[in-house]
Amino acid sequence: MEQEQQGKVYRSELTPVSFLRRNAYMFPDKVAIVHGDRRYTYQQFEERVNRLSSRLRDAGLRKHDRVAFLAPNIPQLLEAHFAVPDAGCVLVPMNTRLGSDEVGYILEHSGAKMLFVDAELEKLVEPLDTSGIEVVRIDDTGESGDPYEDYLAEGSPETLPSVLEDEEETIAINYTSGTTGKPKGVMYSHRGAYLNALGVALALNMNSDSVFLWVLPMFHCCGWCYTWGVTAIAGTHVCLRKVEPGRMWELFESEGITHYCGAPTVQIPLVNHENAHELDHQVITAIGGSPAGPALLEKFQNLNIQPIHLYGLTETYGPDTICAWREEWDELSIEEKAQKLARQGQSHVTTSNIVRVVDENMNDVPRDGETMGEIVTRGNTVMKGYFEDEEETEKSFEGGWFHTEDIAVWHPDGYVEIRDRDKDVIISGGENISSVEVEQTIEKHQAVMEVAVVSTPDEQWGERPKAYVALKEGEEATEEEIIDFCKERIARFKAPAGVEFVDELPKTSTGKIQKYELREQEWEGQERRVG
Amino acid sequence: MEQEQQGKVYRSELTPVSFLRRNAYMFPDKVAIVHGDRRYTYQQFEERVNRLSSRLRDAGLRKHDRVAFLAPNIPQLLEAHFAVPDAGCVLVPMNTRLGSDEVGYILEHSGAKMLFVDAELEKLVEPLDTSGIEVVRIDDTGESGDPYEDYLAEGSPETLPSVLEDEEETIAINYTSGTTGKPKGVMYSHRGAYLNALGVALALNMNSDSVFLWVLPMFHCCGWCYTWGVTAIAGTHVCLRKVEPGRMWELFESEGITHYCGAPTVQIPLVNHENAHELDHQVITAIGGSPAGPALLEKFQNLNIQPIHLYGLTETYGPDTICAWREEWDELSIEEKAQKLARQGQSHVTTSNIVRVVDENMNDVPRDGETMGEIVTRGNTVMKGYFEDEEETEKSFEGGWFHTEDIAVWHPDGYVEIRDRDKDVIISGGENISSVEVEQTIEKHQAVMEVAVVSTPDEQWGERPKAYVALKEGEEATEEEIIDFCKERIARFKAPAGVEFVDELPKTSTGKIQKYELREQEWEGQERRVG
Repeated sequence: MEQEQQGKVYRSELTPVSFLRRNAYMFPDKVAIVHGDRRYTYQQFEERVNRLSSRLRDAGLRKHDRVAFLAPNIPQLLEAHFAVPDAGCVLVPMNTRLGSDEVGYILEHSGAKMLFVDAELEKLVEPLDTSGIEVVRIDDTGESGDPYEDYLAEGSPETLPSVLEDEEETIAINYTSGTTGKPKGVMYSHRGAYLNALGVALALNMNSDSVFLWVLPMFHCCGWCYTWGVTAIAGTHVCLRKVEPGRMWELFESEGITHYCGAPTVQIPLVNHENAHELDHQVITAIGGSPAGPALLEKFQNLNIQPIHLYGLTETYGPDTICAWREEWDELSIEEKAQKLARQGQSHVTTSNIVRVVDENMNDVPRDGETMGEIVTRGNTVMKGYFEDEEETEKSFEGGWFHTEDIAVWHPDGYVEIRDRDKDVIISGGENISSVEVEQTIEKHQAVMEVAVVSTPDEQWGERPKAYVALKEGEEATEEEIIDFCKERIARFKAPAGVEFVDELPKTSTGKIQKYELREQEWEGQERRVG
Repeated sequence: MEQEQQGKVYRSELTPVSFLRRNAYMFPDKVAIVHGDRRYTYQQFEERVNRLSSRLRDAGLRKHDRVAFLAPNIPQLLEAHFAVPDAGCVLVPMNTRLGSDEVGYILEHSGAKMLFVDAELEKLVEPLDTSGIEVVRIDDTGESGDPYEDYLAEGSPETLPSVLEDEEETIAINYTSGTTGKPKGVMYSHRGAYLNALGVALALNMNSDSVFLWVLPMFHCCGWCYTWGVTAIAGTHVCLRKVEPGRMWELFESEGITHYCGAPTVQIPLVNHENAHELDHQVITAIGGSPAGPALLEKFQNLNIQPIHLYGLTETYGPDTICAWREEWDELSIEEKAQKLARQGQSHVTTSNIVRVVDENMNDVPRDGETMGEIVTRGNTVMKGYFEDEEETEKSFEGGWFHTEDIAVWHPDGYVEIRDRDKDVIISGGENISSVEVEQTIEKHQAVMEVAVVSTPDEQWGERPKAYVALKEGEEATEEEIIDFCKERIARFKAPAGVEFVDELPKTSTGKIQKYELREQEWEGQERRVG
């Protein structure tokens, strides 16, 4: 306990690390983390965080140094969300579904000094030159002999003085795939993380009795800030190495799960699982990536699961808007309800500004539910910028608002609803796939003349990439060959779900490929393009 | 809607006004305020706030000018909590139980340019020289002809651009009676108000279905920030001009009340009222001022009311700590539960720091539940300082922490519990009474030689002032005479509940009156001194 403090008596720099400190103090014996048979109380959680934090400080890391993590939803990654910032460093949580090259790119671009890697994902790191990076393997045993546990054992269990000087310091960099194919490093601040943590907890009506199941990846926008949000309300985190619907149904009851988040790609197999049954307590789920259709919605009702549609991007710390339920929707049919719930809605409580839909001159489009424009947002839960990429940052902040590149209509009631995406990104199971990146890969195939990759509807994944390929004269290739070619070069989930060979791709008079036409073709008869 | 914004895209200055803006946008038709037969939706609430804000701007008020309100828990005072800061001004909510002189002192000290006064309280203002202050009467009819409504009618219903430049600007000044007898002006910032609003909403598990009954005065720490907190979660405010237990029981059901706050002085007549009955929905109540005894606690249980003990001071925006329930208390007897619940507990989620109990050298006292020390706190929800009183501000911030002057023990589990008060303040029904002020009044009586005022236990009010009086030789006075003498000069609730005539007051060797001894005498056999 510090005896004297510097600075204003009436100001503390906002940081989500404070949530853990408070819980360790007030609810030391409360279960903070469940992981299979392992359980950590809030006191143990803090002690492990302290050990990691002090060990990182001892490792000679300087303030703002990047520490990368490549791990599934395990306690260690949750610990990192508190320990790395507590040490004054910046967390770089990496997508476990990336290819080796992409992992290498992120390590290099972020300038990470350390990498913690789960044993199952070590294969992604092995081909890389990691000289200059200290690598610690996580065996996830929770016992000595596990390199991560041994690393912790060398740290001190004591709380060290905070080194945070300004709440706008960077707490994490989340890499996201954009239009260019090269991941961009989205910088989060302590202030934004603190505020969105409270916001997302409030969005799902969470309190200290809440038990959160980690289905949504923690590497994704720091788990939409629920890593910090569940901790803010002193709830319980239930970890999950691998998303299995059967296991989820078990945990709903054995651990008394009250909340989880997931894209429809996770929700559909869950509600259709043979063990699906009406729960005796209500479970609230946040749906993101794409909205729930009527069939899914009806199943949720029968299972006692209440869906809440949240929308956001990596650049907005995850959730930025909520499709808050309106009383007048109660009487609608299930199809109509699904239509309403498909809206992205409007700002949740800590978003600070109403999101707008604007034309190319940054003027609001009419709120007629028809005119399309781009969703723009601003405020405390918008990223600080892209790490070491001033050009992209400036571009995305043009006109004083963050440009989502999501094309939407603005409804008369103020809610926004996405109709199309401006950028060539395919959202598959909540993950961004850059169509440009897939195109660039396929173009490398010797038989390919030109290629366009667009999204195609998929019941489970929402969207999947599909490639339209024109072959060089005299060359031949099969669908399987192209798909395998991609799987060898980029993350498997980015490989196209299908390949259609065409003589020529549709083009504008100036020779630009009209991907819009191909998308139209794929999505014909589907009411929503993307969600 | 502003087309371009100044400043960082990723920063919005925190202000609780944003909560109202969001609700008016997202839940325009939701009932925001209930006041008897009157109902205002969030859209109407915002429109009224806009009218008041624009009218204040038109009145020529400059930024940071003070606007005083003297009113019970009516919609107009709630509106003031948003409109006055939106206009760039500082709200001064005044205690309706003050005497005329005190009202005059606050108006003068705050330099208020405007005063809004409820018709029933006009008598407090009539004797005062209000030259230089524009006074607007509130008839609380909600209809034209009511000076307040006519004032609003002159304003614009449109939202004007925010004039807030820095979230640390002052939003309100709450006057509190301290040791000196002269009220001190406690300054709140937009940032602190925003954060404590979220904190107090989370402390009571509130969400958008919450319906809050305004029992706690809004003039008291801006209603412990629930003026902003209930709005933050888009709940419904139910106003109440006068606290009447029978009316409360009616409203619990007719309006579906889910939350209210009150000192035991309000709670005891409520649970003992002839209409008290087990509610079919749970009501959560925050208890402050002093804790609930076992008898009250047992009644709560039978009535389906869940009490939560919050503690704080005007200087901490109201609630600073919460006695959060611990699982291990479930099995205790009702007496033991009451004992646990009597603790002030520890910081609620947005308090930012653990509160400490320190000795005179600012060292932590042992956490033994026995050693007494002073509660100190710091962080975002500590006042900016006392308005135009640097000396008192510095004194209260000594050593980098805010000194509550509440004497407490620190329990091994980290919770704090008040044992005595260092300052000569008597908390009667949640209101501060300065014993020094009462002493100074009684001293003016021609028959009085010396006087000491201490607290005496009172089942309903928690504490009441009691005067020990030594008369001048040859002079005579009765108890009634002294009490009436006070009632004519200071707020009636500050007059002593009893007067005991003594030959001599107990003194130290240096001649200082030993008030501690007198308190001992009053509180003998009572387990808790104060709460």
